[in-house]
Amino acid sequence: MAASNVRAVALGGGHGLHATLTALRRLTDEVTAVVTVADDGGSSGRLRRELGLLPPGDLRQALAALAAAEDDGTFWAEVFQHRFGGEGALAGHAVGNLLLAGLFEVLGDPVAALDEARKLLGVSGRVLPMSPEPLEIVAEVTGLDGDLATGAVRRIRGQVAVASTPGQVRRITVDTARHSTEPPRACAEAVDAVLGAEVVFLGPGSWFTSVLPHLLVPELHDALVRTEATKIVILNLVPQPGETAGFSPERHLDVLLQHAPELKVDAVIADRESVPVPARLRDAAAALGARAHLADVGNPAAPGQHDPDALARCVREALGLGERGDRGPESRP
Amino acid sequence: MAASNVRAVALGGGHGLHATLTALRRLTDEVTAVVTVADDGGSSGRLRRELGLLPPGDLRQALAALAAAEDDGTFWAEVFQHRFGGEGALAGHAVGNLLLAGLFEVLGDPVAALDEARKLLGVSGRVLPMSPEPLEIVAEVTGLDGDLATGAVRRIRGQVAVASTPGQVRRITVDTARHSTEPPRACAEAVDAVLGAEVVFLGPGSWFTSVLPHLLVPELHDALVRTEATKIVILNLVPQPGETAGFSPERHLDVLLQHAPELKVDAVIADRESVPVPARLRDAAAALGARAHLADVGNPAAPGQHDPDALARCVREALGLGERGDRGPESRP
Repeated sequence: MAASNVRAVALGGGHGLHATLTALRRLTDEVTAVVTVADDGGSSGRLRRELGLLPPGDLRQALAALAAAEDDGTFWAEVFQHRFGGEGALAGHAVGNLLLAGLFEVLGDPVAALDEARKLLGVSGRVLPMSPEPLEIVAEVTGLDGDLATGAVRRIRGQVAVASTPGQVRRITVDTARHSTEPPRACAEAVDAVLGAEVVFLGPGSWFTSVLPHLLVPELHDALVRTEATKIVILNLVPQPGETAGFSPERHLDVLLQHAPELKVDAVIADRESVPVPARLRDAAAALGARAHLADVGNPAAPGQHDPDALARCVREALGLGERGDRGPESRP
Repeated sequence: MAASNVRAVALGGGHGLHATLTALRRLTDEVTAVVTVADDGGSSGRLRRELGLLPPGDLRQALAALAAAEDDGTFWAEVFQHRFGGEGALAGHAVGNLLLAGLFEVLGDPVAALDEARKLLGVSGRVLPMSPEPLEIVAEVTGLDGDLATGAVRRIRGQVAVASTPGQVRRITVDTARHSTEPPRACAEAVDAVLGAEVVFLGPGSWFTSVLPHLLVPELHDALVRTEATKIVILNLVPQPGETAGFSPERHLDVLLQHAPELKVDAVIADRESVPVPARLRDAAAALGARAHLADVGNPAAPGQHDPDALARCVREALGLGERGDRGPESRP
């Protein structure tokens, strides 16, 4: 497995981030994951409500994705990912979520806690929360009142509610769980990682609830605008029911531009099969300053999932990296 | 801190075992704790009932006691010992109990799970369960029917119920939680540890619920009878309300003899202050084949608790070990 020391930062959450991290670890040892902390469902939601801590699930998934790339990182990753069964108080809790919650409480600092978990898992990369405090997604949704023509806008609060709304999400904002009037704070280490990166990835993933939230934390947004890193957006293979049902690939980019008009992007990676009209995608990418890279990055054996090797090849090409991960002279478009 | 390579095994549970382990680590690196698995209260009891696993609490305490003796074993020991607060589903659960439960499920083998936990905590000693399956204490109790003179005997089941009975415990048996007609199995590694030990410790601790149960698992009993190790009983500083209220030190030894008539012991260690009539204790010790060692082993700053340094000194003396832990020629009485 070729590896270099390109400093890469991947922003996202959930399964999408898992895909990026798995691909990136084929390219470099220096991966930092910056993870959404707005989840309010499942084991994470229960821990968040019960203990007032960061929802640990997406952080755990990112750790597990990075651990899988390590030679001896699999045992503790398996323990982290194990979920208790049955119907009792612990049913559905992942062991790693409970351990992260314990580390958060003992150390009083999620970044220090994640660094300890990282050591336990033998992970060479780093996993950081997007914010040091739990956040809430608030979405403006239309089409909830029967008559789509009225265009009535309703506000829906919470990741689970937004991800499963039968209406159409128009715009999101990110709020602190304290419902403070101040905007959410970014994790300082995440801001530093973005500013110090050579390449930054956004997506794939649930567009409104895992990808865009990063752009709505002001300090993180500013770091993404200011960083000299090559910025790459990786599009989803299929629209997500609820959140982005019926969204074309270019519509995903339009929404990105709408939420962060100042953001310039260098490359957009999309699956060839998932782009019905390549010219439209190229136009939408150009509006962000980016070149579109179409390639076969889907996993034929698992529809809807990226193939990590194919994605890694495409990233290498978009970065102008040689086969062994060396940066070529044409690395910046 | 002087350390030798004397192979020591300490049998017990809860705070009593913690005291022995803390003292023993001052004498040797090769400590194996053999821990009762009959707890049915608190966090352990909830996990046992919900998941059908070994109650992890006493195992966790033994790991933490051994970790405290290691230079860099304190961080994860603190995480293990941390308890969630609040009033939710996790309130009162120790993080280490949850992690041990996860390891039990992932590995399907409590001994392998405890060995992984031991590595995580940087513990050089070993912690083993007395049995690979959860057990139940069943006690014959008198004095529950108002009229002590009737001598009516009632059976009380479960560690919490036995430890808090207002009656007087006469005798205990140990049952599998499956309520099988077969006697409980011993952990094979615990049997091997006892047979291969140079010195074996029993007590201090809750006499009926943490100390005697070891003698009631047939394979463990036989190993204790057969082993060529020096056998040392460490008596409690004070009787325990409920279990052994009003018990004299010699009564503790009488009860031991009653539950394991074949067991021979080499030394009995008792706190000088806690023994009103030394001659009686010497007689009771002699009935077990043992010599009584009276010393000031209580911690003046914490009444009811052993002072680890004083206890280590007394053990060294009982074993005929030199100051640096070297075995003297008079090691076997």
